[in-house]
Amino acid sequence: MTVYTAPLDEMRFVLYDVLGADKLLTELPGHEDHGADLIDTVLAEAAKFCEEQLLPLNRTGDEEGCSFENGVVRTPKGFKEAYETFAGGGWTGLACRPQDGGQDLPKVVNLMVEEMVCSTNLSFGTYPGLSLGAYNAIKLHAAEELKRLYLPKLADGSWSGTMCLTEPQCGTDLGLIRTRAEPQGDGTFAITGTKIFISAGEHDLTRNIVHLVLGRLPDAPAGTRGISLFLVPKFLPRSDGSEGQRNGVACGGIEHKMGLKASATCVLNFDGAKGWLIGEAHKGMRAMFTMMNAARLAVGIQGLGIAETAYQSARAYARERLQGRALNGAAAPDKPADPIIVHPDVRRLLLTIKANTEAARALALWVGLSLDIAERHADAQRRQEADDLVQLMTPIVKATLTDLGFTAANHGLQVFGGHGYIREWGMEQLVRDARITQLYEGTNGIQALDLVGRKLPTGTGRLLRRFFHPAMAWVEEHQADPAMAELVIPFAKALGRLQQATAWLAQAGLRDPNEGGAAASEYLRLFALTALAYMWVRMAKTALARPGDAEFARTKLATARFFMARLLPETGALFQSLMTGAKPLMEIEASAF
Amino acid sequence: MTVYTAPLDEMRFVLYDVLGADKLLTELPGHEDHGADLIDTVLAEAAKFCEEQLLPLNRTGDEEGCSFENGVVRTPKGFKEAYETFAGGGWTGLACRPQDGGQDLPKVVNLMVEEMVCSTNLSFGTYPGLSLGAYNAIKLHAAEELKRLYLPKLADGSWSGTMCLTEPQCGTDLGLIRTRAEPQGDGTFAITGTKIFISAGEHDLTRNIVHLVLGRLPDAPAGTRGISLFLVPKFLPRSDGSEGQRNGVACGGIEHKMGLKASATCVLNFDGAKGWLIGEAHKGMRAMFTMMNAARLAVGIQGLGIAETAYQSARAYARERLQGRALNGAAAPDKPADPIIVHPDVRRLLLTIKANTEAARALALWVGLSLDIAERHADAQRRQEADDLVQLMTPIVKATLTDLGFTAANHGLQVFGGHGYIREWGMEQLVRDARITQLYEGTNGIQALDLVGRKLPTGTGRLLRRFFHPAMAWVEEHQADPAMAELVIPFAKALGRLQQATAWLAQAGLRDPNEGGAAASEYLRLFALTALAYMWVRMAKTALARPGDAEFARTKLATARFFMARLLPETGALFQSLMTGAKPLMEIEASAF
Repeated sequence: MTVYTAPLDEMRFVLYDVLGADKLLTELPGHEDHGADLIDTVLAEAAKFCEEQLLPLNRTGDEEGCSFENGVVRTPKGFKEAYETFAGGGWTGLACRPQDGGQDLPKVVNLMVEEMVCSTNLSFGTYPGLSLGAYNAIKLHAAEELKRLYLPKLADGSWSGTMCLTEPQCGTDLGLIRTRAEPQGDGTFAITGTKIFISAGEHDLTRNIVHLVLGRLPDAPAGTRGISLFLVPKFLPRSDGSEGQRNGVACGGIEHKMGLKASATCVLNFDGAKGWLIGEAHKGMRAMFTMMNAARLAVGIQGLGIAETAYQSARAYARERLQGRALNGAAAPDKPADPIIVHPDVRRLLLTIKANTEAARALALWVGLSLDIAERHADAQRRQEADDLVQLMTPIVKATLTDLGFTAANHGLQVFGGHGYIREWGMEQLVRDARITQLYEGTNGIQALDLVGRKLPTGTGRLLRRFFHPAMAWVEEHQADPAMAELVIPFAKALGRLQQATAWLAQAGLRDPNEGGAAASEYLRLFALTALAYMWVRMAKTALARPGDAEFARTKLATARFFMARLLPETGALFQSLMTGAKPLMEIEASAF
Repeated sequence: MTVYTAPLDEMRFVLYDVLGADKLLTELPGHEDHGADLIDTVLAEAAKFCEEQLLPLNRTGDEEGCSFENGVVRTPKGFKEAYETFAGGGWTGLACRPQDGGQDLPKVVNLMVEEMVCSTNLSFGTYPGLSLGAYNAIKLHAAEELKRLYLPKLADGSWSGTMCLTEPQCGTDLGLIRTRAEPQGDGTFAITGTKIFISAGEHDLTRNIVHLVLGRLPDAPAGTRGISLFLVPKFLPRSDGSEGQRNGVACGGIEHKMGLKASATCVLNFDGAKGWLIGEAHKGMRAMFTMMNAARLAVGIQGLGIAETAYQSARAYARERLQGRALNGAAAPDKPADPIIVHPDVRRLLLTIKANTEAARALALWVGLSLDIAERHADAQRRQEADDLVQLMTPIVKATLTDLGFTAANHGLQVFGGHGYIREWGMEQLVRDARITQLYEGTNGIQALDLVGRKLPTGTGRLLRRFFHPAMAWVEEHQADPAMAELVIPFAKALGRLQQATAWLAQAGLRDPNEGGAAASEYLRLFALTALAYMWVRMAKTALARPGDAEFARTKLATARFFMARLLPETGALFQSLMTGAKPLMEIEASAF
């Protein structure tokens, strides 16, 4: 079985010591009371719920899966009770507005709670996760009457939400959407079409489900400029908020998937269902992107959550499993064999997860904190700068943390040897569950294109400055610091490569868009490793400066050194590879593959 | 659904044009008639069987799995019939001796057949695969009477075989084996103990199952020097070869696994079962290694087989799926969108599989041909040299081709986007099935230790010369060849890095064994990429020189360029990473992880 104890010390170290979030947050309007004490309490409560309620349901949920019969979807045993406890504890409304009954906590705190949920039960996490996405889209784009009816129900968790984008003929390319919306003359629309891959599209956890659906009005232009966003509830609410008549949307089946089996992935058939327009006609993509950006960050957190559990489980196994002897002599001569954590290659697997995961958490929380600053800071320029960082980093966080979740699960499984392949140990479920995160909310290849094609050119590199400026300033400040020398040199080298690749890409991409496309995935990875290295130098510096706990500082420094020595060299290969340009990818005819 | 057409042209190109195997083989005693014509016929027949019989059973076998009831294991529907056709067609005896009823074909031909079997149904392949391992161990180490009784039954496939090594407390560390063997005074032994993870340990495909079991005699020294190998049949054969009384071995259950679900992975309980010693007392590890080396090569082939199917399936999907437009303008303006093969990042995924798979096949067949030369060449020195290459390359092939199988399946799945996660498309099964190959027959970390700890030091680098000599000679011969310049330069650079890392490792490993352990995985990968690059320069040169088919040569050259440009740069990162030594891995206390 997998083991998990919420990494609260790590979270606090990053949030308070590295990012200074306790101070920053209380300077934001509405967060004055959300200091370290309150955050600590919330995190401890969340940890308790996840460890005690969600973790035990993870394996059983995978084994049982969701069932579908006559349009009804049932979640596995125990999910309904756990969801009621979760909603009853106020967790669904953690980051919702007070006027909707929410607790209005900072988004960065919510991200940490989401990490714990995903560490213990990724399937479970998809239900409230999608509700929060729907909540935010309605909050930002819907008419007041819709907000009044729907937001409190999503905040208290009695209703849940979905995002209905994909159709059989269109996934990435939403311009191909066929779902139709006919105006009914009363301000409502009749929605007709088939949506697939709808997470939490139908289930038994909530009394109602609020679908946010992309479709076309009769006068819609072709392509993505003709897509509108509609709110379509499963049950039409009465004006008092109670659930009324059933709407014309039905679940046609659930998918049989590699993993994430306790999360219902549904085919939804809309047959003249009553819907309401959210935001402006034909501007649905804009509203959807609000949801999607938040969702991409949340999916990154899913990967991070899996990586943490993979690490803790593999570490526990490596300390307990006795097999072979240390290469330089028995470490536990009184036992029949040494624990396998003595072996360099087992350590390599564990440290690769550990060094990536700790830096990934720091990166995610940096971006999470920037979300709060972007939303609430008194200074407009600080808001803009924070938003620029979020925009830049969202595809990087999504792709990098989900790739991390999958590789960490595989590294962790590898530590278990053949036992890792057996279902009862739980490691193979982590691999199967993690795999979806690299695909949904835009495949990781799409994230790379978003970075290269949209984020880099914005404001002639304006977004980039939000990373490069502080990173370069850090190098300048610490290049003469002997305590940091072994870390600052490799970091500065990676940063230099990233800058050179960025400059090359800006040129080459202008000449031929395929150059950008061909470099995108390697460029994103180069950027990510450099950003993780930046997190490591900051964490190492902070740990050294922090009074007390010498072992904590020693381990942080050693992990930083491992990252620089064994993982960061990949930047050299990525740089060399992407600089060879598009020709090696494009010269072969499709027929000759 | 996955698609597969056996890559016979690729196999023939490597075997005949690159390796000159058709000529080499017919110079070996007993293979005089095994020229290109016969090999072509065998491969075409194997392709037909695999495509028509095995591929359709792959998904259904995964869905149904094996069942266990009252000690009886049933394979999925259709497996028994397919196995009967397979055995009836003489495929189980393809590489067996004529006196046992086998066809005595070259081992390299058998490897190609195994690739096709693994491409179409990895689970099915485990049954005959293990029988061949048992056949070879008995052939090389057992007494004549045992050979006479057992070999013809294994060759004609009416009986199957197993390897019983692992116990609950010991996987990698066979020194911990507890299974006991009590001499019965009549030349037989009573075997008692529990074995786990026994592939094909119990099933309904054959009339009898021949277990090769590692155990300890009463006077056995501790550790691996006290292990003996025993033959323990499920049914005790009568002297006429018919199946007699049931022996004291029973299946206690089957494992529920991530994948490979149509292959029964059994717990076997030996309770005073009658067994016969194979080879000398206490020398079981030696006999077992005969089986294990062949098995490691065969497991590498499993990875190769999966990679080929992942490639073909993803290629077909990428040509058909319409989504988005080419970055430099519509490629199919008459269609609603372009096929996704126009996108550089989709090509990157496909070409990464293609470039690795074609070179991996060449490497495997080079080693496979060396097996035949090592066994039969008239010249003792040629035999020794060929065996040295096999010894050196076995861990590299096992680890590299299985890592390839897994990453190729994942790259292929990624091409399918969200559809790749859905069971009915078959791609996620490839990922789940491939994952075991990185674990069994020694995890890939163990392969790296075998390379660094056993193979490099043998005869002060004698084995290494079998790779370095021809590789260096190739560079020397072609460094002034303008047609090869773009390939020979990166290859020579990688080769230089490998040589430097080898020299460093020989020094550092003497100083501290953990240095070897810490470098092992990166070193194996550096070696593998260099070996794949060597295959690419040889294939490119051969394709250029081959008359006819210009498109074949053009695509081979372009794929070679892709490999050098986009994949080989990883060698730089591996070199830099491994040269940082063991300290970053070893300095953290186990308690501080």
